Amino acid sequence: MPEPLRLGLAGLGTVGIGVVKIVQRHGALIAARAGRPVSIVAVTARDRRRNRGADISAYAWEDDPVRLATRRDIDVLVEVIGGSDGPARAATEAALASGKDVVTANKALLALHGQGLAERAEAAGRTIRFEAAVAGGIPVMKALTEGMAANAVGRVVGVMNGTCNYILTRMESAGLSYATVFEEARSLGYLEADPTLDVGGIDAGHKLALLAAVAFGTRVHFEQVAIEGIERVAIEDIRLAADMGYRVKLLGVAQMTGRGLEQRMSPCLVPADSPLGQLSGGTNLVMIEGDSVGQIVLRGAGAGEGPTASAVMADVVDLARGIRVPAFGLPARLLAEAPPAVQPAPAPYYLRTTLVDKPGALAKVAAALGDAGVSIDRMRQYRHEAPEAPVLIVTHKTTRDALDHALAAFAATGVVVGTPVALRIEQV
Amino acid sequence: MPEPLRLGLAGLGTVGIGVVKIVQRHGALIAARAGRPVSIVAVTARDRRRNRGADISAYAWEDDPVRLATRRDIDVLVEVIGGSDGPARAATEAALASGKDVVTANKALLALHGQGLAERAEAAGRTIRFEAAVAGGIPVMKALTEGMAANAVGRVVGVMNGTCNYILTRMESAGLSYATVFEEARSLGYLEADPTLDVGGIDAGHKLALLAAVAFGTRVHFEQVAIEGIERVAIEDIRLAADMGYRVKLLGVAQMTGRGLEQRMSPCLVPADSPLGQLSGGTNLVMIEGDSVGQIVLRGAGAGEGPTASAVMADVVDLARGIRVPAFGLPARLLAEAPPAVQPAPAPYYLRTTLVDKPGALAKVAAALGDAGVSIDRMRQYRHEAPEAPVLIVTHKTTRDALDHALAAFAATGVVVGTPVALRIEQV
Repeated sequence: MPEPLRLGLAGLGTVGIGVVKIVQRHGALIAARAGRPVSIVAVTARDRRRNRGADISAYAWEDDPVRLATRRDIDVLVEVIGGSDGPARAATEAALASGKDVVTANKALLALHGQGLAERAEAAGRTIRFEAAVAGGIPVMKALTEGMAANAVGRVVGVMNGTCNYILTRMESAGLSYATVFEEARSLGYLEADPTLDVGGIDAGHKLALLAAVAFGTRVHFEQVAIEGIERVAIEDIRLAADMGYRVKLLGVAQMTGRGLEQRMSPCLVPADSPLGQLSGGTNLVMIEGDSVGQIVLRGAGAGEGPTASAVMADVVDLARGIRVPAFGLPARLLAEAPPAVQPAPAPYYLRTTLVDKPGALAKVAAALGDAGVSIDRMRQYRHEAPEAPVLIVTHKTTRDALDHALAAFAATGVVVGTPVALRIEQV
Repeated sequence: MPEPLRLGLAGLGTVGIGVVKIVQRHGALIAARAGRPVSIVAVTARDRRRNRGADISAYAWEDDPVRLATRRDIDVLVEVIGGSDGPARAATEAALASGKDVVTANKALLALHGQGLAERAEAAGRTIRFEAAVAGGIPVMKALTEGMAANAVGRVVGVMNGTCNYILTRMESAGLSYATVFEEARSLGYLEADPTLDVGGIDAGHKLALLAAVAFGTRVHFEQVAIEGIERVAIEDIRLAADMGYRVKLLGVAQMTGRGLEQRMSPCLVPADSPLGQLSGGTNLVMIEGDSVGQIVLRGAGAGEGPTASAVMADVVDLARGIRVPAFGLPARLLAEAPPAVQPAPAPYYLRTTLVDKPGALAKVAAALGDAGVSIDRMRQYRHEAPEAPVLIVTHKTTRDALDHALAAFAATGVVVGTPVALRIEQV
């Protein structure tokens, strides 16, 4: 049997222990598939004594992740500590500098420092792989960099945060407000210590930035992702959208347009009967459009011990097999600086507004839309008892600029109560 | 720039011309991603003079596929001639013998001769890759052999023949019989010259045999796939299944059970609201269950010039990058001989039968089921005018043996008219 591929495992949380379990359970299977054994040599974590539900006594212990990363007896650093800086970054940089490959599940690290890390890896003749950082167990990085390698990608659309999708799904099925479901999720332990990473769309935004870089061969720019979380999604809009045949999803969209690279993570409407609309609970789904292959949809668990460790180990098996694709699918020097698109591509929009119940009110709003060049596809006025009438409008495809002009003009009509809600309808 | 990877292209039909177009359109993109250019050096096809809608004048022409396959100036044979024997097989064997890698879209060739070809490839230090042979553009082979490399696979389920799925979808949506839709599809040019390859489940059976071998690390045995086509699916069953919340699909299922490897391609019922149930028209979908990752669903175009050529080129780019995974994911000598399962795993079944309209008729049928150990989940008797009553039964999970005993006993009840229809309900 050839020499084993030797891992240094930094981090023994959920994902790290998942990796330990797979290596212990599937040693023979992995050796057969990879053509050589994969072994864990040394580990590190914050607390050595904690009971973790897996036997790590056979592995050398390091207190310091950087010392682990630079051990002579490891070939690959598996970094599952997390966090965009601190020990995760230090260990990753140290590993690359000392000629190790790196496999990581760390979306924040890659989204913020990916270009620099890819350059360091290549300077050392190594690579840094991060299948587990995006959409958990779904092999989406492999599908993009390898399975669709002969395609120019037009658009990537996905639901990539299970917590947000759980909250939105639960709001719809139980008819509960965001605040109520948020508290419910907190008490069930579904939320991170800092829940704004999830519900604020940051975590999903990190993933989208990585997907965009790989899909379009561009330098990763997380700060160019237009992010809006789900905190302001009203149960009323979920209900009314359903009535029109749509579902509200925290949707990531990356597309290359004539006016630059568009990256958005925001609540959008999608048809209820589309694969994205059908997605409930914690499942993730990524849809990729390639010029030759058409639309490819990948769906699976977006988080959790088993799925995330499965993706980490897929990268490890690749390295054991001698597969060393560059971090973002292209050599770092070939990654382009795409100008960010100033506004999103035209789309239909869902508008909810409230009108005073007077003759001609609807006509004034319709006129404001028409004057801004926004045409109406469907409009519904709901039965009401109060002197104010809820009105729902689905527009034809329009620019966000035109829509904003129309919404600004609503105030001057004197018939609109409060601020209208506008949600993009993504065509999927 | 490093040396190009040089292709010999055997076959200039739909897929071959798709490959030519991608190489011509995306030369720079592919070179950047692969780290070296990919060039077509020589081509072969039956008729040199035919107009193919692509300029092939820059490539050397060979009349004989074997001569093409053994040219000194090619590194890879791309075989898209098709057919399990004849020139496709001869060229593939010749290419391997002369030290070339082979990329093929040929499911019949691999399903019937895969083990031998994998052994020949390894003896020559080469590989034979066939992403395009299964589910067209969907990178399912890559997902299984690499993306899920650290998982033990439990089951693979898929819809892998677009023609059959189109026919079944159209029967349901238009309420037409199989014969009518078949003729419609023929006149639209959707059918192959020999349509039984599609509607008889052979083509999809080839794909399932390949999926099973890769999923379970077993030798490919197409002759062990239990195949039933869609020719006998009645519109009545499509309608009644829909009434119970199911759709009829030509479903491929491969699973490793305690009693051996089960491989089936047959019309089954799936929940109408599942990803498989939602699948309409020519789209393919493959669902894979891994012990760590859980359920992964891959969906996309299963055929056509662009999608199939995209998959061929993914294998080519892998080779250009130096990625050379064994044909079935494991070295050929490690592929196991799994005993075929004698009967399928237990499942619920859909039964449609017709009873004479006499008191006690239903009770006799229910008793026949109960005596065989088959318990009833739901039963519906439909309103009728004739003296014969259509009855629909959904059983609880049962073995096929027990069900067959019950069906045999139906005849002896004296109240059953004709032969009952039994369709497996696959849990997905």
